[in-house]
Amino acid sequence: MDTALSYAENNADRFVGELKELLRIPSVSTDSAYANEVQRAAEWLADHFDAIGMAETDIIETDGHPIVYAEHMTDPAKPTVVVYGHYDVQPPDPLEEWDTDPFEPTQRGERLYARGACDDKGQMFMQVKAAESYLSAEGDLPVNLKYVIEGEEETGSMSIESYVEEHGERLHGDVVLISDTAMFSPDTPSITYGLRGLAYAEITLRGPNRDLHSGNYGGAVDNPCNALSRVIAGLHDEDHHIAIPGFYDDVRDLTEAERETYAALPFDEDAWMDTIGIDDVRTETGYTTLECLTARPTLDVNGIWGGYTGEGAKTVLPSKAHAKLSMRLVPEQSVPDIYDKLEAHLETAVPDTMEFSMRRLHGGDPVLVDPSIPPMQAAKHAMGEVRGTEPVFVRNGGTIPVVADFQQHLGLDSVLMGFGLDSDAIHSPNESFGLDRFHQGIQGIIRFHDHYAAMEA
Amino acid sequence: MDTALSYAENNADRFVGELKELLRIPSVSTDSAYANEVQRAAEWLADHFDAIGMAETDIIETDGHPIVYAEHMTDPAKPTVVVYGHYDVQPPDPLEEWDTDPFEPTQRGERLYARGACDDKGQMFMQVKAAESYLSAEGDLPVNLKYVIEGEEETGSMSIESYVEEHGERLHGDVVLISDTAMFSPDTPSITYGLRGLAYAEITLRGPNRDLHSGNYGGAVDNPCNALSRVIAGLHDEDHHIAIPGFYDDVRDLTEAERETYAALPFDEDAWMDTIGIDDVRTETGYTTLECLTARPTLDVNGIWGGYTGEGAKTVLPSKAHAKLSMRLVPEQSVPDIYDKLEAHLETAVPDTMEFSMRRLHGGDPVLVDPSIPPMQAAKHAMGEVRGTEPVFVRNGGTIPVVADFQQHLGLDSVLMGFGLDSDAIHSPNESFGLDRFHQGIQGIIRFHDHYAAMEA
Repeated sequence: MDTALSYAENNADRFVGELKELLRIPSVSTDSAYANEVQRAAEWLADHFDAIGMAETDIIETDGHPIVYAEHMTDPAKPTVVVYGHYDVQPPDPLEEWDTDPFEPTQRGERLYARGACDDKGQMFMQVKAAESYLSAEGDLPVNLKYVIEGEEETGSMSIESYVEEHGERLHGDVVLISDTAMFSPDTPSITYGLRGLAYAEITLRGPNRDLHSGNYGGAVDNPCNALSRVIAGLHDEDHHIAIPGFYDDVRDLTEAERETYAALPFDEDAWMDTIGIDDVRTETGYTTLECLTARPTLDVNGIWGGYTGEGAKTVLPSKAHAKLSMRLVPEQSVPDIYDKLEAHLETAVPDTMEFSMRRLHGGDPVLVDPSIPPMQAAKHAMGEVRGTEPVFVRNGGTIPVVADFQQHLGLDSVLMGFGLDSDAIHSPNESFGLDRFHQGIQGIIRFHDHYAAMEA
Repeated sequence: MDTALSYAENNADRFVGELKELLRIPSVSTDSAYANEVQRAAEWLADHFDAIGMAETDIIETDGHPIVYAEHMTDPAKPTVVVYGHYDVQPPDPLEEWDTDPFEPTQRGERLYARGACDDKGQMFMQVKAAESYLSAEGDLPVNLKYVIEGEEETGSMSIESYVEEHGERLHGDVVLISDTAMFSPDTPSITYGLRGLAYAEITLRGPNRDLHSGNYGGAVDNPCNALSRVIAGLHDEDHHIAIPGFYDDVRDLTEAERETYAALPFDEDAWMDTIGIDDVRTETGYTTLECLTARPTLDVNGIWGGYTGEGAKTVLPSKAHAKLSMRLVPEQSVPDIYDKLEAHLETAVPDTMEFSMRRLHGGDPVLVDPSIPPMQAAKHAMGEVRGTEPVFVRNGGTIPVVADFQQHLGLDSVLMGFGLDSDAIHSPNESFGLDRFHQGIQGIIRFHDHYAAMEA
């Protein structure tokens, strides 16, 4: 392990230069205009796996964007770590709020700014560089490694889900290792043992058959934008609970022990609010902010649009209004059940003056992993060594849909050892990644493989 | 008069060809990208006034788009008719819903399809061709004529308002004649004696200082799109009244006589709903559909936007949400007072988690004109002759801001003799104008000038 660690240290600058190459490819998976760029990122990554000496590399074509696969089996007796990550990124808009081009990585101080710098190109690339460090410095790995790096994480992970279901034999292994999460804080490294699920829908209300003049028709024709607002307003009650009948039926409430753990975390709520520029939270009555951020379900409008949104004043009574709505789910809520409940509620809530339709854009189930299993403990030790502080186990409010698939279809638990921070601003303008953490991540992953192999030996 | 009427009949095809030239100029006033085209339309029109023999033509530059002025004084003893119209048009979007290019006028059957075909290039051009018919066929006019044709009607008529206030002496006259309204129905020609006013605002709610990841922040951070929906939902009560304190204070309620007149109008509500593809209306409790469409105030969302509105799913908790809101006003509501009441209400209704701002985009006061005055009666006779049916006097739900200015600053009543129909789809995709009505309009205006001169002689 030590020569691998030294190798990583000695090649740190080159690693950053290579990451920049990948970040320059605008692999935005949610927008078909970027499809060629997503393909180009996949090819770049597969070539890179070849270059670092992985025994087998493959670009797996799918109905959507390809999956990049790489494998290096050293010894059937050693444990097999399946590394999951993604090479696609979120759209960069609103573009005007970026200080520098989102696809021209720019280093300012200790940070590298680019779309995907952290989520997930930067973190995924730590996994690649850890393997390179072993292979180049030691000619071997302490574990068997299988990489499965998808290109649709930001748009629902449809293809990897099918792949996991249909080609599970190729992904046979002992545990999944993922770097796609954030640490609790700079001073409190953490390993994630829970993820929320996601059910993301797009709804459309259609009133009149065309846009109307608001002077000639206003006063008697129900307006889809007003109607949509009423429908959305009705999705929460006065206590900020979600007002969809049956929504909480399957929610496993927090145990007293969990609530005590939450309360003990060093969470400076005022400082947290300051970083995002808010004066007050809006939480469910009866739950703390941290609980609401990670262990309680949510419903947010991710986008809303209808009518005239350009410059100036257009006196239109619009024909249609749309919203993208997503719900974060917690164990034991299930995606299809929640979609059904949302749709049933909306069918009732949308007034008769409107035609209503809903598209289920994508979902992912919630996940919990037992922190006491060996790979979780190996990650704890590895991360503690590189950060200088023992990490805590926390739940994360985000969703990685494929983690539930690994659990459900392959029986594989996932170790979520991520080196992000809230300040990396993933999914936002000016996303960045601290280069100190990029290098610590590589070192931590090198250590994880060694510790885990020793524990399973 | 008879030679003028014959001239108009003999030159009908040429008149349509000239109108097409004007319709090809995309003079969209609300979008600064089209500023040069608006200027070009003004120049085209001024040249045209010269060409038909108006004694004086002028392009009046303003802080916004120019006003085209033309004048022909035949005899100080004759009454002076001030003709108002506008050469600017609404934006053409949504472009994909047009069957043909909005700026390439296309004749299908009896109709001419183009943005502005009816509103107001087509109707305004009837006024121009009526003058040409007199000047070319008879060498003289029965009245003095002053044309004031603005280029900002679709974006608030700011410049003409200042012009009316500051240069009233140039617009001295006896009455204003306007063709910018629709008839009650094909079988019921009408002259408009009332217009609603307009107060149009844009509001912005700002929550967090940047777009956030909905997984990492959802559940504790108030979402501007959700908050905006709650605020908009709260703008109406259960009876569909507007829930802004004091909003109805100055509304002059309908008299029993007016309500009887409304009830007598041949309004086929089912057929009307069919044309716009709705199954039911949404009206204020206690008022009929026709009353709500023309004599009651309204509040409509004209546009709403926030968050991610592109293809696919972006899991963003947006920083901001916006809406364009407009209210149609009735006598004696005043624009500044209604803006103040809206803003005061929103200041209270917007939650403390949001920063709130409001821009007053444009307004226009409501108008009523006495149907018994001579020019209204002259219009009634002229229109009855060309349509074969005596017109009725009705109120219109739309707004022509300058009409209130003519009344308030110059003491001039306006005769609203328009030849549009609902089926012309003004402000909508596939706007059109029936060419039969274009030619009837020219004949009707020729007759109006003659009858009005006789009544005032």
